[in-house]
Amino acid sequence: MHTLTAIYRTPENKEEFDNHYRDTHTPLAKQMEGLRKMEVTWVEKMLTPGNDTLPAAPHLVCTMYFDDAEALNQSMKSPNSRAAAKDLMGFAGPLVSMITGRTEEIAL
Amino acid sequence: MHTLTAIYRTPENKEEFDNHYRDTHTPLAKQMEGLRKMEVTWVEKMLTPGNDTLPAAPHLVCTMYFDDAEALNQSMKSPNSRAAAKDLMGFAGPLVSMITGRTEEIAL
Repeated sequence: MHTLTAIYRTPENKEEFDNHYRDTHTPLAKQMEGLRKMEVTWVEKMLTPGNDTLPAAPHLVCTMYFDDAEALNQSMKSPNSRAAAKDLMGFAGPLVSMITGRTEEIAL
Repeated sequence: MHTLTAIYRTPENKEEFDNHYRDTHTPLAKQMEGLRKMEVTWVEKMLTPGNDTLPAAPHLVCTMYFDDAEALNQSMKSPNSRAAAKDLMGFAGPLVSMITGRTEEIAL
């Protein structure tokens, strides 16, 4: 699996942000081409002091799963993903960081 | 679900870090009380410029899933989780940030 993870800093107006995130952004993001699974974490606590990794507790983290790197890359160039990215930049451009990577489930 | 997410900054010696992470830390973390699922993402790219959310691309992200907040909190106080935390602080204390939150899967 490959994932695209979006980490959002705490917005000034949480209610406005959350409403846009749930009612507008999520419906767009769900339609990203090749998306297999999407998980949202509403952050509650940061257990470590701020450092150069994370200066402060984020507000939320969204993880989007794709079959592999190629599927993720293709999706990034596709219309629904571009529409989601455009919306993202409009409501959360300065707040968001996005990373991609290879994700493995560890057998317990 | 509730999750505990550990985000690691890029270590100076990646090979040494990765070996310890895979061979020593992961076997300890897998035994955390109440752990239902564990996913590791080896970060490949950061798509956004560094900002106050994430100053730089992390090296890896590990997400640990628990049934609920109570299960996560109980786990934090339990022997196997304490052993994993002790190991973590020894090999990655200044590199790691940890957050907890409520995680929901978005129906596609």
